[in-house]
Formats: sequence, C-alpha cells, structure tokens
Amino acid sequence: MSADQNALPELGVAVVGHSFMGAVHSHAWRSVDHVGTPRFRTRRVALAGRDASRAQAAATQFGWEEGVDDWRSLIERDDVQVIDILTPGDSHAEIAIAALQAGKHVICEKPLAKTVEEAQRMTEAAQAAAAQGVRSMVAFNYRQVPAIGLAKQLVDAGRLGEVRQVRAVYLQDWIVDPDFPLTWRLQKDRSGAGALGDIGSHIIDAAQFITGQRLTGVSGTVETFVKRRPLEATRTGANTGLGAEASSEYGDVTVDDAAVFFGRGDGGALMTFEATRMATGRKNGMRIEVNGSKGSIAFDFESMNELHFFDGSIPAAENGFRRILATEPEHPGVANWWPAGHGLGYDHPFVHELQEFLGAIADGRDPSPSFADGLQVQQVLEAVQRSAENNSQYTEI
Amino acid sequence: MSADQNALPELGVAVVGHSFMGAVHSHAWRSVDHVGTPRFRTRRVALAGRDASRAQAAATQFGWEEGVDDWRSLIERDDVQVIDILTPGDSHAEIAIAALQAGKHVICEKPLAKTVEEAQRMTEAAQAAAAQGVRSMVAFNYRQVPAIGLAKQLVDAGRLGEVRQVRAVYLQDWIVDPDFPLTWRLQKDRSGAGALGDIGSHIIDAAQFITGQRLTGVSGTVETFVKRRPLEATRTGANTGLGAEASSEYGDVTVDDAAVFFGRGDGGALMTFEATRMATGRKNGMRIEVNGSKGSIAFDFESMNELHFFDGSIPAAENGFRRILATEPEHPGVANWWPAGHGLGYDHPFVHELQEFLGAIADGRDPSPSFADGLQVQQVLEAVQRSAENNSQYTEI
Amino acid sequence: MSADQNALPELGVAVVGHSFMGAVHSHAWRSVDHVGTPRFRTRRVALAGRDASRAQAAATQFGWEEGVDDWRSLIERDDVQVIDILTPGDSHAEIAIAALQAGKHVICEKPLAKTVEEAQRMTEAAQAAAAQGVRSMVAFNYRQVPAIGLAKQLVDAGRLGEVRQVRAVYLQDWIVDPDFPLTWRLQKDRSGAGALGDIGSHIIDAAQFITGQRLTGVSGTVETFVKRRPLEATRTGANTGLGAEASSEYGDVTVDDAAVFFGRGDGGALMTFEATRMATGRKNGMRIEVNGSKGSIAFDFESMNELHFFDGSIPAAENGFRRILATEPEHPGVANWWPAGHGLGYDHPFVHELQEFLGAIADGRDPSPSFADGLQVQQVLEAVQRSAENNSQYTEI
Amino acid sequence: MSADQNALPELGVAVVGHSFMGAVHSHAWRSVDHVGTPRFRTRRVALAGRDASRAQAAATQFGWEEGVDDWRSLIERDDVQVIDILTPGDSHAEIAIAALQAGKHVICEKPLAKTVEEAQRMTEAAQAAAAQGVRSMVAFNYRQVPAIGLAKQLVDAGRLGEVRQVRAVYLQDWIVDPDFPLTWRLQKDRSGAGALGDIGSHIIDAAQFITGQRLTGVSGTVETFVKRRPLEATRTGANTGLGAEASSEYGDVTVDDAAVFFGRGDGGALMTFEATRMATGRKNGMRIEVNGSKGSIAFDFESMNELHFFDGSIPAAENGFRRILATEPEHPGVANWWPAGHGLGYDHPFVHELQEFLGAIADGRDPSPSFADGLQVQQVLEAVQRSAENNSQYTEI
Repeated sequence: MSADQNALPELGVAVVGHSFMGAVHSHAWRSVDHVGTPRFRTRRVALAGRDASRAQAAATQFGWEEGVDDWRSLIERDDVQVIDILTPGDSHAEIAIAALQAGKHVICEKPLAKTVEEAQRMTEAAQAAAAQGVRSMVAFNYRQVPAIGLAKQLVDAGRLGEVRQVRAVYLQDWIVDPDFPLTWRLQKDRSGAGALGDIGSHIIDAAQFITGQRLTGVSGTVETFVKRRPLEATRTGANTGLGAEASSEYGDVTVDDAAVFFGRGDGGALMTFEATRMATGRKNGMRIEVNGSKGSIAFDFESMNELHFFDGSIPAAENGFRRILATEPEHPGVANWWPAGHGLGYDHPFVHELQEFLGAIADGRDPSPSFADGLQVQQVLEAVQRSAENNSQYTEI
Repeated sequence: MSADQNALPELGVAVVGHSFMGAVHSHAWRSVDHVGTPRFRTRRVALAGRDASRAQAAATQFGWEEGVDDWRSLIERDDVQVIDILTPGDSHAEIAIAALQAGKHVICEKPLAKTVEEAQRMTEAAQAAAAQGVRSMVAFNYRQVPAIGLAKQLVDAGRLGEVRQVRAVYLQDWIVDPDFPLTWRLQKDRSGAGALGDIGSHIIDAAQFITGQRLTGVSGTVETFVKRRPLEATRTGANTGLGAEASSEYGDVTVDDAAVFFGRGDGGALMTFEATRMATGRKNGMRIEVNGSKGSIAFDFESMNELHFFDGSIPAAENGFRRILATEPEHPGVANWWPAGHGLGYDHPFVHELQEFLGAIADGRDPSPSFADGLQVQQVLEAVQRSAENNSQYTEI
Repeated sequence: MSADQNALPELGVAVVGHSFMGAVHSHAWRSVDHVGTPRFRTRRVALAGRDASRAQAAATQFGWEEGVDDWRSLIERDDVQVIDILTPGDSHAEIAIAALQAGKHVICEKPLAKTVEEAQRMTEAAQAAAAQGVRSMVAFNYRQVPAIGLAKQLVDAGRLGEVRQVRAVYLQDWIVDPDFPLTWRLQKDRSGAGALGDIGSHIIDAAQFITGQRLTGVSGTVETFVKRRPLEATRTGANTGLGAEASSEYGDVTVDDAAVFFGRGDGGALMTFEATRMATGRKNGMRIEVNGSKGSIAFDFESMNELHFFDGSIPAAENGFRRILATEPEHPGVANWWPAGHGLGYDHPFVHELQEFLGAIADGRDPSPSFADGLQVQQVLEAVQRSAENNSQYTEI
Repeated sequence: MSADQNALPELGVAVVGHSFMGAVHSHAWRSVDHVGTPRFRTRRVALAGRDASRAQAAATQFGWEEGVDDWRSLIERDDVQVIDILTPGDSHAEIAIAALQAGKHVICEKPLAKTVEEAQRMTEAAQAAAAQGVRSMVAFNYRQVPAIGLAKQLVDAGRLGEVRQVRAVYLQDWIVDPDFPLTWRLQKDRSGAGALGDIGSHIIDAAQFITGQRLTGVSGTVETFVKRRPLEATRTGANTGLGAEASSEYGDVTVDDAAVFFGRGDGGALMTFEATRMATGRKNGMRIEVNGSKGSIAFDFESMNELHFFDGSIPAAENGFRRILATEPEHPGVANWWPAGHGLGYDHPFVHELQEFLGAIADGRDPSPSFADGLQVQQVLEAVQRSAENNSQYTEI
C-alpha cells in the first residue's frame, strides 16, 4: 500500500472557521490519509478566521500550515483545491458560492444556509460547478455514524417492511441555564434558526436518509422558554466547544429553544420530530426510531455505537429488540478502525464524511449528501416555521 | 388488625364485563381486603356478561358468587353497593348513569365514554349522585403505578422546576399483523376511537396528572395503515387478553391505528403525544418524559418498576439520570407489598386504584380521578380528532 | 369451565409462618384457584404462628380461616391436606418431617434446611412419604420466573450449544446499614448461613436448573464486613418485609455478609457465584449469565420480565443480545395472566409454583424441585463453607 | 498558544510493532500535539517491523517517516528519544531493556512481560534509567478512560466509603469459533498467557487503580475449551485488528480461554475476576463494579462513556444508580475534546496515555503506571496460575 500511497496526488485543503467544528474537522483531516484506502495525499494548507492572531494560534493547535484572517485569499490560492466551511450560518452562502465559482471543491457544515433563498443560490452554484467537475457536499455527519448507516441498510434491504412511523428527537440541555449567553447560535440573523435549524436539521436529514422518504408536509410549533439572556463576552483563544462567557448586558433571544412538528413522508410514513436545547439532563440525545410493517430500529446518539433492531420474522416467543454493537467490520466505515467491540466516538464519522467527499472528487462523481439535499432540508425547516406562524396548519413542502 | 378487620362494614361489589379488564379487576378485588389497611369487607357478589353461561363460567373462574346476563338486575339488588364497569366504551354511559341513579358507587374503565356528549351526561350524573354521597371514579390505572406516583411527587415538590416539555408515547404492536381481526376495539361505533382513545387517553391523563398542567389546545393527525381486516369469529369461553380469532369475511377498520399530536399545557408546557398499535416490537411502551428547568424524569411501562430522574442540582461532573427502583416502601402504594427490589406487575396498581376508590367511599369524599377528569380527557381526544379533520390546525379545548 | 371448577375436589391448606414469605404465599394461595386451569378448590384453613393473637391477626389479614399458635395441631386435622412451611430455617426439618409422616403434602421454603444432615433426614422422609402418594417440594421460586423458564428452554433446545460458562450473582444491600439489627437471618443457629444460604442457594439452584449441570466441586471464601449489630427489638404485628427495629444491646453476627465461589458443572461448565447483602444500591440483583458455544443468555431479577438472548446463528453484522420481554403467552406461566407487554411482579411466580405443586398432587407425580434437589443445594453450600475454612481449596461435592 | 507551541522542543518517537496496537498508537501519536496543551513537537521518526516492506507500508499508512526491519537500529539513532513497544509479549523485555539502557524513554504495551522474571529485569532497568532521567511507563490504557478516571476520583474522595467488594470481568468472544487460528496470542511461548494475561491483566490493573487496594492473595482456576486449532496462515499487509486466517494444519492451544479467580485487597476488599474470550456475544465487556459502605460504581467498556454511580447519601426514596455520561469537561481527559454528550471512542484514552507519558518526560517525573506497577500485575497473574495448578488454593502474592 505504501508505494501507492506515496504516489497519490496531493490535494490542498483550507478550512474557514475554528471553533467547535474547526477542532472536529481538523482532527478528521489529520486522520483521513491514514485510515482505510486514501485517495489523495492531503495537505492542510491554511485555516482562516476573523482575527489573524487567533487564526494563527488555531492553525498551529489544529495542525494547519498557516492561519489567515481573510478567507477570500484562500480561494485565490493555487495550492488550495478544497474549502471546508465551518463558520456560522450567515456566511455559508457567500463563502461557498465564491469558492465554487473559483473552482474549489466545497464541503459545508449544516444547516446549509440561513434561508431557503440562500440555499437555493448555493445549490445553483453547486450545480454549475459540478458541470465543471467541481464537487460540493453538505456535512450531515450523522449519516456517517455506523449504526445509522446500518439502519439505512436494513431499511433498504426491506427488513423493516413498509416504513410506517418515525419518531426523531434531538434533546440537548446546553442552554437550560438562563445565564448562558447569547452566542451566535441564539441569534436569528447569525444562525437562521435555533434548535430547529441547528439540531432539527440533523434529525430531518437522518430520518429521510434512513427511510428513503422525503417529507411532503409538516405541522409544527416552536417555543422560546428563556426570552432574554446576557450578551456574550469577547472571546479569546481557540474554542473547541459550545461554551461561552456572559457579559453584564442582556439581549433578546431571537430563535427557538424548542421545536416540535410532525409530517408525512412521500412513502406514507407518519413522522414526528422534536428538537430542543432545554431537555435538562440530555446531553446529545439524538434518537431515531423507525417502525415498519416487519421490523423496527431504534438509535440514540448518547450510545452511538449501538443500533437496536427488532426483526419481526423471528418467532414472538424469542423475539425482542437486539442491541447490535455497530462495531463489526461489516458495518459502514468500521473496517478501517478497531476490532469488534472497540467503539468509535463523535469524531470518527467526520473521517468517513471526508472519505466520501474525497472519494467523490477522486472518482469524478458527486458526493452525498449534496447541496440540493441541504436545500431540501432548508425547505422543511422553513415549512415548519410557516406552520408555526400559521396556527400549526399542515404546510406542504 | 384482625379484630378491626372483622368488624369492617361489608360492601357488595358487582362487575359488568369479563374479558381482559374483567380478569385484571377481579384479581384486584380478590386482593384488596388483604393488602394494607382495608376499609370494608368486600363481597364479590356478581359478574354480568351478555351470555349467561359464559358469565357463570367467568364468575367461577374469577371468583364471583354468581354470573348473570343482565347488568340491570345488579343495580336493583340491595346487596350490591358498587358497580365496576369493564365493558366496551359504547355501553359505559348507559350503565354508569343507571347505576349512579340507583345509588350505586361506580368505577368505570377508561376512556370514560365514546363521545364528549356521553361523558358530559355521565359527569352530570356523577355530580348529582355525589350530592347524595354516591361516589364515582374513572379507572386511569397508570396513575397508580408507583413510579408514576413518584414522578408526580417530584414535580409537585418543585424538583423539576418549571415544567417545560413533555413527550408521551404509547407504543404497542398487537395489530401489526394485517390478519388480526376487527374486534370491538377497531370499530368506531363500539370503542369511539382507535389507538387515540384506547391508549392515547392513558398518556393524556398521565401527562396531565404528573405535570399538573391541563392541555389547552392541540394540533394532530391520525392514520389507519391497515384499512380492511377479517371480521372476528364468534368468541367462546372467557378471554383474559386482547387476542381474537379471524373469520373469513372482511370489514372496514373505522378507527385510527396511530395518532400523533402536540399541545400546550395551561402552565406553559409544550407537550407531544403519540399513540400507536403499529410500533412493531413495542409491547407496552407507554413512555413519558418530562423536562423542567431544574430536572427531568423518564418512565417506560415496559420497565414499570423504574423511574429515571435527573436532579439538576447535583454537580454536572457527577450527574446523570438515576434509575430509581420504585419499589421502596416510601413509594406510593408500595409499602403494603414486598421489600425493596421485589417488583410489582401490571395488576398491582389496580389494587391501589380500588384502595383509592374504597377509601373515598369510606371517608365520604370523592375519589380521584373523577368522571369530570374523564370528561376532560374526552375533550382532548375530540379536539385531536377535530384538528386532524381540519388540516391539523391548532384547536382549543 | 365453571361446571368443572365447582366439581373440583377440595384441598385444605395450612401455612406455618406469617412474615415476608407468609404474605407472599398467602397472596399466591388466594390466586391459585383463579388463574389458568385449577385442579382443586383450595380452602385456606389455617395459619400458624408462635403467638396466638398475632397469628389470628395475620390469618385475617392474609385471608385464612383461622390463626393458631401450634403448628402441630394443624397436621392432626383431617381438613388439612397441605402444609406450607415458611418459618426460619431452624424449624424446617421438624415441621416437614412431622407433616410428611402425618400424610400431609409439604411445600417448604428454601434453603431446605440448616444443615446437610437435616436436609438428608427431610429427603428420606419425603421419599418414604412419596411411596404413600404424599408429595413434597422445595420452594425455589425463581425457577418459576417466566424469563428463567425461557432461559432453560433455550438451553434445553441446544440454542446455546455447549454450555461453557456461568456467572451468577445475587446482590442486595438491605443490611449495609451497620445499625440494621441482628434478625434471625443474621444468626447462624436460626438460619444456618448468611447471604450464602439465603440468596446463594437461589443462584446455585437457578444456575443448575437453567444449565442442567450440577456442580461437582467448588472453591470459595466468605466474609462478614459488619461483625457486631444491635439486637432486634421485640416484634409486634404482622411483618411482610425484611425490616426490623433495633434495640440498644449488641450481639455478634454469626453468618457471612458475602460469599464468593467458583465451581465446575458435571457437563464441564465453569461457574462463578457471588451472594452478598452488602452491594450498596443493588436491591434484588439476582443476575445470571450463561455463555455457550452457540449463544448466551443474561437475566437480572431487577428487570424480571426480560431475558437477554444472543443467538450466535444470526450473522454478526446484525447480531446482538435481544431483549425478550418474557410476557408472551408462549412463555412459561404467562398465558393465564395478561397480554404481551403487561409485566408480572415478584409474586406471580409463587402462583406458578403452587400450580406445579397442586398439579403434581392431582396427577399423582412428584413435583419439582424435590427435597432431594434441596438437599443437593445444601451440599453445595456446605462444600463452599468447607472450602472457605480450608484455604479456599477446591472441594468436591 | 501558537507561539508557545512552535517553540516547544522536538521529540523523536519510534514504534516497534504495527498490527492492532500499531494502528491505535499511531493514531494517538498523530493527535497528541493537537489536543490540549502539548509539551513537545513530536516527530514520528520510524516504525519497526520484522519485514522491511511490510514495515514501510505500515509506516506510510500510519504516518511515520520511515519503516525499518530492525528495532535495534532505532535505539542507536540520535533523533529518536522515545521507543513505543507494541510487539507480542515475548520481545518486550529485550527491547525495553535495550532501549532504556540506550537512554530512550520507553512506553510498553501490557502485560509488561511474559513472566515475572522478565518483568523484574525490566523494572530494574527502568529504575536504573530513571536515575538518569529516562522515563518508562506500562500502557494500561483503560486507566485513561474518563469514566474510569472518574470512578477513581469518587473512590479517592471517599464517596463510596470503605470499599468492600469488587467484581471485575472482561468478556470477549473473538475466538469462540473453533476454526479461529492459533495466532501468537494463543501460544504460551509468545504471549505468556491467554485471556488471563491479555485481558485479565487489564481488569487486575483497573480494579487496583480504582480502589487503591492491591491484591494480597488469590484463588483461581483456568480453562481451555478449544484445545486444538488450525495454525495461522502467513500474514500479508498491515493488520489493524485481531483477525487472522487459518491454514490447514492444526496445533495445540497452550494458553487459557478463560480464567476465574477471587482475591483480597490490602484494604480488606473482596474481589472477583473473570477473563474470557469465549463469552459468546460479548465483544468488549470489560465491566467493573465496586461496592463500598456508602456508595457503588459500575462500568462496562461496551458503553465506555458511561459511569453508573450510586451515592448512598441520597434518600432511598429517590435514589438509584445514576448514569453519568463521562463526557463533561470536568472528567479526566475530556476538556480538550468535544462538548458534553459527544462521546469518545476506544482510541482517545491512548492520547491521554501519551499526554501522561510526555507530561512526565517534560516535567522530569516518573509517569504512571510504572514498570513496577506492571510487575505487580505480573505477580498477580503468576499467583493465579499457581493457585490454578495447586487445587485452587489461596495463594499469597
């Protein structure tokens, strides 16, 4: 393998953004050449931030050759072929469109954009770029969790029969403290939405991915339990988490704390959703249950290496949900890591995501999920918002 | 205790109905004088069914002095002071009103009635009877599960802070087989509703009971996945379960297989609900989660002796949901049963329910939950139906 | 069924003892004619205790016709055919042998006796009685838990292949408080042994029952962590639990708090055991795991309605332990109770036990487990004690 | 941070071995400069194997500058300051002693050696080297799992009171297939022991680490269920797992498949242990439970991000084991990774281990656990073997 590996083409990568997602993506970029069958020798060329010295510090910390304060300079460089966008949602459209037009492959964090309109323009840019062999991908990382990949395989193989019901919740509690400050994720003009966009987008994508059914309409409502919060104090240093410090001034929370909605899939499934950052005690409870005429699956990201599967073809007297440790080499993405029973963590699926992205670049195909997929999720989010503003009426997508 | 116990007043009881609920209630009536501090010496006078010989067989099997085929005869007897109504929903109103008017204390299975209008008439009869010292109660048995009683205590004591979110689902799969026949529970004119009424009523009541908040409006939808089923073959013998045999003829299913809805509590909580009989692999998944500003609880009837409680006042570094085995003597209803760790089953809460009912009769107070509580649940069910028929619009209760 | 049931022969029953086991057995005796297919019309003739007034109170409370202070009078009565022995271990031999010699069928709580010698005499009496059609049974109630019955069925059907390893623990914490008094269960001359005898006997029996392998030798050790405790204050009233009140005087604990041992089954299995009353936080953690060449099972009485089964014949990529809710009608003892998913409690297996006992009497066969089975468990207990006293040397049974 | 980081001293590292542990350690070496506060700029100088071309391939794959076939050459290089030993147990002593004598810091996989005698020589070499400022560490990676670190903190803080009982099992099933070949791990002359040494050493170390008590004596037995297996076919390519291919020839298995033992800690705790590779369905069931007079903890590596803690000071009516997600920033090693609820995987503790090792080098202190700790574990393993060969007699350590 070594000879091949040294002969691989080089691919220059730059990331824009360096807080939580910067840390995770950087970790994945440092690993991707060393896991499985690499397709490139990647070079971690540069990391861009808003502040030069913080960007340089982050570049060193996360393993990039340089740190810069101007993302535009990156897309002008010949030694950069890939732009990885990790910024708050309000800058995705501008950066992605510029990068694609400059012929750079783009991978962009979710939700794709702040609005449907932005997502639409990004998707058009992606489609135009694709005609030139330039690739783009929206980073719905949970698709790359082995247990979720296995869930999809079971559905695709007909093991659940006709998919009839989905219940998907994403439960966190990181802002249950009313003194948690008004970070960009709590400002509509920065993030586009609250729990609905940030984590609701994950469960919409995951539910559609697993079932193969797209939502055709929704009915929902949203709520902001804590309506004013302290403003955020100025940040210093790299920040790899979701934490922040409060100042003494207050401002209005302009996004939802929680959103609930139900909808119908184009294959007839009845789906329910809840995204909340106020579920005290739940740290990362992204849970998906799918019930079909022949079987069911259940997943909870707090136990991310497990998929619970009920196979209705087994005699009732000895049947039950089985707890599959999704750490077998047959499970999507697992073979290149550790032996069975040696679980993966939050970060490993990001490597799988890059493998999909780089594989697509190498193979000259479009990676999945596409910007168009990101746009469709944005349309669902918007339909939920409209329903919520319209007496929860069922709203077509 | 023995001297007292032999000196207790006698109370004659009759039950109407003898299938699943007949078996469970009879088991409870056989135990109620022997658990804790009895208030009466109960006499199991008679059991009524539609067919005399089947009623007689059931009376012997379940431990009643006689079996009769005419419930009206029971309310005319002087040696009967209590009527326990276990029939399909379409006869609740008629029997309950007649019994109350005859001065008999009434305990009636849930949902209270087939329609709001019936439930209203029953509630009026109950209120008129109460003025004469005649008691009535609707049998929402899950309130009597120790873990649910404990959940309510924690909420009442402020341990969850402000209750913000509830997610309540009741997942069963007993009719996922499309050849399961069209029993009375699948016929709207017999049962009033499908999963929504049968098991949805349980989670509505439980969510309101635990949180102390009543729903003020709902938005929902319903679905029938299997639209035609074989008619039921004629029954023979007692039937203590939910099973049935199919004939070769088919009919239309006139109730929902699944219902989903969300609503608002009068204390501001956002609540989501799902009742389904099509959740393959889930046998009795009545699950309730409540999130408050200071803590959370989670319950699943499939593990009915456990309550999971997150107490937000514990330092984060050592906090987590704790699995309370609700088998301690301090837990509601437990002290008179077995030592800690020796779990109860589905039937024990029915004894607690009778203890509440008989205690109220003895004390000259109204038992809880009342017919008025049953009516309010009926109003929620109807609002869900109306919302479902009206494009899922938010519908006030 | 009614005609048959009324025509059944009457069978007079008397119990000796009325604390925790008295409450549980009485509950079972009240139910046994009303569950499944009864074989007798049982009459609850009398309950015997040491104190007449307490016995009378207990008789009323638990539903027996009379309470007496002399168990000997019971075995002289013609209207008593069954003696149910629930006393501390030091009186089992005397009562059982007298009852058997008087021609009474005997069911006796576990462990069968205080010593191997006593158990031997009881077994001889049982064998002599059996020749006269008089039946005897030792009450290892856990055999009657549906999930454990299912475990045995799976092993018997070869679904685990060759049984290679067993780990059985029984973890309680009811005497972790050093002020818990010196009840009879903590006195060697009353109980014969501590955790080893009381709960160790349960896991020895269960492990042998499930696997079909008998222990041929053991190596073990025992420990008493709290060596002195307050004496017990005089009891008043019935006592349905394990609780007690402390006096101000102290005495020596003469039994073990914990015992650990391993052994070999006659089929080659390597088995480990631990019985402890000092496992803080564990209320009734009777857990058994069996690993075979083709599959495994796992059980925990704290979730008594579940059996976890790993079927090695399923492809690895979708395999895992499945959580079987042992509440299906096919599961041992379940069909006569409630529908699937409606769990049983600690007391229901005692009904199953009586069904086995009464069925054997009716059928003219010996019930299982026999006194000889109880003797064999006693021999294992004694071998553990000998090993513990002999530098943990492996000791043959 | 960047300026500091670029100014850090360089440290040249070489690894010996490149199968499963090679993959894991390399992944950790690639991350260690980028997580938390690095102490060096590490250079991944070389990887050594037995075959030059396979070593070169592995070096490229895992991210090392070169691959060599002679580990001795590495310890002669000036640009190598650290030797990381990942080979089968039969070469640990030779490599480690040579490296230490050459002044290289050494981190060595567990168990430290094949025999006590080897471990003793290694410990002497380590102590001699330490006098020269050369550091050594045995790689018991499970100490670095955040949940296990938290367990130790709770014990150290007295939250469990007096530690009385430990039950530690390590359950795997990777050789339950009788056709799995006779790899080095199944040959006594290569590995020193079977399950006992490989995974038993982990639970011995973890139990002692968490409780702070060292075993003073043990009583045990071992078993080999599958006595002959196919020889291993010649390996080709890198091998990151535990898998292997069978040839058509057979050989004797010379190590145990399973070992069970109990022992006493120097603080009075009674501890039980089981290590097995034949627990069908268990993939990596390293489970540790500790019971103290005031509290208990429970851990299972199959859910490695969870610690279950019972705090006996909480009132019984609301107490239970709490499931702590050990993903909070306060938990050992976590702060530098992801936000709460974003779990770690098998590999992250290896980074923590390197952080301890490198921190000790930088600080001029001895890292923990030391070779002396590894030797003590080896002594326990040997005592178990002796007990097993001596009728399971209790054997002092």
